Amino acid sequence: MTPYSEYKPLTFHDAARRFTDGNDNPRAYLERCLETIAAREPVVKALTAINEPGARAAADASTARWKAGKPLSSIDGMPVGIKDLLETRDMPTEMGCAAMKGNFPKRDNAGVWALRQAGAVILAKTVTAELGGSHPGPTTNPFDPARTPGGSSSGSAAAVGANMVPMAIGTQVGGSIIRPAAYCGNFALKPTQGGINRGERLATSQSTHGPHANSLEDMWHSAIEMAKRCGGDRGALGLMGPDTLPAAHKPDRLIVLETEGWPDLDAATKTGFAQLLRALEAAGVSLIRRADHPFVEALERTIASSRAVCNGITSWENRWYQRGMLDAAPDGLSARAKATVLRAEAMTPDDYRANLLARQQAQLAHAAVASLADGAITLACPGPAPLWSGDVPGQPPAPRPTGDFVFNAPSSMLFAPVVTVPLMSVGGLPVGVQVMGQQHEDARVTGLARWFTENIKRIATA
Amino acid sequence: MTPYSEYKPLTFHDAARRFTDGNDNPRAYLERCLETIAAREPVVKALTAINEPGARAAADASTARWKAGKPLSSIDGMPVGIKDLLETRDMPTEMGCAAMKGNFPKRDNAGVWALRQAGAVILAKTVTAELGGSHPGPTTNPFDPARTPGGSSSGSAAAVGANMVPMAIGTQVGGSIIRPAAYCGNFALKPTQGGINRGERLATSQSTHGPHANSLEDMWHSAIEMAKRCGGDRGALGLMGPDTLPAAHKPDRLIVLETEGWPDLDAATKTGFAQLLRALEAAGVSLIRRADHPFVEALERTIASSRAVCNGITSWENRWYQRGMLDAAPDGLSARAKATVLRAEAMTPDDYRANLLARQQAQLAHAAVASLADGAITLACPGPAPLWSGDVPGQPPAPRPTGDFVFNAPSSMLFAPVVTVPLMSVGGLPVGVQVMGQQHEDARVTGLARWFTENIKRIATA
Repeated sequence: MTPYSEYKPLTFHDAARRFTDGNDNPRAYLERCLETIAAREPVVKALTAINEPGARAAADASTARWKAGKPLSSIDGMPVGIKDLLETRDMPTEMGCAAMKGNFPKRDNAGVWALRQAGAVILAKTVTAELGGSHPGPTTNPFDPARTPGGSSSGSAAAVGANMVPMAIGTQVGGSIIRPAAYCGNFALKPTQGGINRGERLATSQSTHGPHANSLEDMWHSAIEMAKRCGGDRGALGLMGPDTLPAAHKPDRLIVLETEGWPDLDAATKTGFAQLLRALEAAGVSLIRRADHPFVEALERTIASSRAVCNGITSWENRWYQRGMLDAAPDGLSARAKATVLRAEAMTPDDYRANLLARQQAQLAHAAVASLADGAITLACPGPAPLWSGDVPGQPPAPRPTGDFVFNAPSSMLFAPVVTVPLMSVGGLPVGVQVMGQQHEDARVTGLARWFTENIKRIATA
Repeated sequence: MTPYSEYKPLTFHDAARRFTDGNDNPRAYLERCLETIAAREPVVKALTAINEPGARAAADASTARWKAGKPLSSIDGMPVGIKDLLETRDMPTEMGCAAMKGNFPKRDNAGVWALRQAGAVILAKTVTAELGGSHPGPTTNPFDPARTPGGSSSGSAAAVGANMVPMAIGTQVGGSIIRPAAYCGNFALKPTQGGINRGERLATSQSTHGPHANSLEDMWHSAIEMAKRCGGDRGALGLMGPDTLPAAHKPDRLIVLETEGWPDLDAATKTGFAQLLRALEAAGVSLIRRADHPFVEALERTIASSRAVCNGITSWENRWYQRGMLDAAPDGLSARAKATVLRAEAMTPDDYRANLLARQQAQLAHAAVASLADGAITLACPGPAPLWSGDVPGQPPAPRPTGDFVFNAPSSMLFAPVVTVPLMSVGGLPVGVQVMGQQHEDARVTGLARWFTENIKRIATA
């Protein structure tokens, strides 16, 4: 394990340049990933299944295509991990859930299908917190095994952070892509709601698929090559944009959002974020805070209960399928998941509608700030990944074992695209900063993230 | 089999009145349904499974509740059929599809759960055309066994038309509730998109659950008692309205829509519809046609390719799960379903987006007519149910064996609520007339349908 300060991330887009001149090839790239997995997996525990023979065959086919000068896409030959909520035809889909043990439907999720069509090498399934919720799997943080990698896309974030693969697919309902990505030093895109076709995946009204990667290039290439083939969700236009990483976009003005996470934030993270904001101002970016404009204040107010709104919506939407699982296998769900089902079953349709109303009001407040700035900036996680050593037998389940999604619930309920950039470290551990745009501004937000990456140095605080 | 002219529909709301004074009870009501099923099912073939013991137990429990003066709802004790696309914990869910043979997940769809909570007696699963598409099951029309009952909710429409049950749940993506209901003499509600929670049901962006019934009372009571408990789809407010049938609402003005089905309509149906319109005018209702207002003309134009738009959207949205089924069981889908998958796989994301755009434009045109009239009226099916004796071996599959959804595609793509009323007969067979409102006007449209039912006599043409 290398300390984060000396971390050299594994990327693909630069290696792919050497595939054309024969100095490297997808099969060799894959073998290096497998070596890293052999070295890191015993401690990181990011993967639930590996398909080595299938991956080698796919990498060989890709090697032949690059040799012939005919790659299928910019991600042809990229070894990837798939969060174990998404169906894959060649590996089981067990969703971190005892009730799903042995589930192996032998078909591809629409996004997985699209990755294969683009030539990507589907190497492994990655650990998810149970059913995409908060009950953690075995994965540890790649920069400190005593800490959580975050969740629910725990394995995708950790596999990328541990350089096992250059990209892995996560999913976010409340904070499940951006938070673990931020804890594990990834770049990641949580697209506009509906951005990437979720296919068969039991879909709440605010969940998205999105890539975790070690570079913006690999992140964007993966997202756009998927959306080019499988489009967006049912009824949604889906992610659109250029085939290559959008140009760096220097913001003139940025909205700084506190969110409901601000009051409880630790001092070192606050200090680091303040330094980052000063660096932005030094680079000529104007900042607009809640005190500066009534629209920003209105937005802060409407996202001030974002966790409760997200939880209310999601638990209601999941209650029937989870009740069905529970009735079929009473011991098939964790105590955490059972408690969520019971809370949802205490809700009425009007309770749910009230949450939908709060979500729509927040989206209205977000739309109102569109002309004020080029985007919004906020932390991607509440400081570095917390320590986690498991529940204490005989005690009630600990709250939030994969960390708090307080900085992620806003963009989830706003349906807004966000990119997290590993721009900070606190106590030697990664902390992400996220850039948020209006709905459908995924490419623009990625361009802002690129400008940050190329122009702002990582801020380290103790 | 009684001819349609002498048809005495089985209803529940009136029987329920006698449950309180002890002159009837849900168990006795159920036994009468079972007698009708025994008499009619051999020819009508509406059901895929019957749970007699479970239904008797549920009916006995309901009988006790009525006796105690504590029914759970207005539909407590109502024997119901459930389209075999929806999961039921006590009967298999085979979706009219060879690949789904033996599928029995032993859990309830959200709507089925809500019906049970309201005290309804889940008696049977009803035949669906394969996967809710156009490949027919064995069901025959209850008023002429040589004819189709329509589809895809074939069994629900036929079971209600044959008086096997007073209500059955259907689902509509393009025309699958309203067309079979109209062919079988049912009342039926296709709610506003999102009206009733579809739960686990693989959901295209324009499908809804809705009740087929022999009276507006049973139709409305069923819909509202479901929505009161399980609400609408993910992200949707869902159906709202009074617990009892909305008051009759006399329209001052109605828009008459031709739709793309008009040019090909048979003479007898055209004559009957014209008589109906004259009866409306005689009752003091003003009619607005496409020549009368440019907004009506604009609406007619945007729905003129509604079949193609609906097919494009739906086949694209279903392609991944159906491809997965096909790969797992190459003989598990009919030639019709296979052809649909192949057509969908020839589409690009932009082809799909173009259909979404067409749908949104049509919705805009529909919203624009809101202030012109109290609602719109059109045929619910293109004349009486067509003859159907099965595909001819060695020949290509016949087109549209369950009839044409040309009069149903508009309300489906408009996300608009419609109620079909059995207001016509042509050649001795039922033909429905539908009333359409703006999105979320389900209760209002039901009130219009009530006024029609109470004030306009059925028009019979030869």
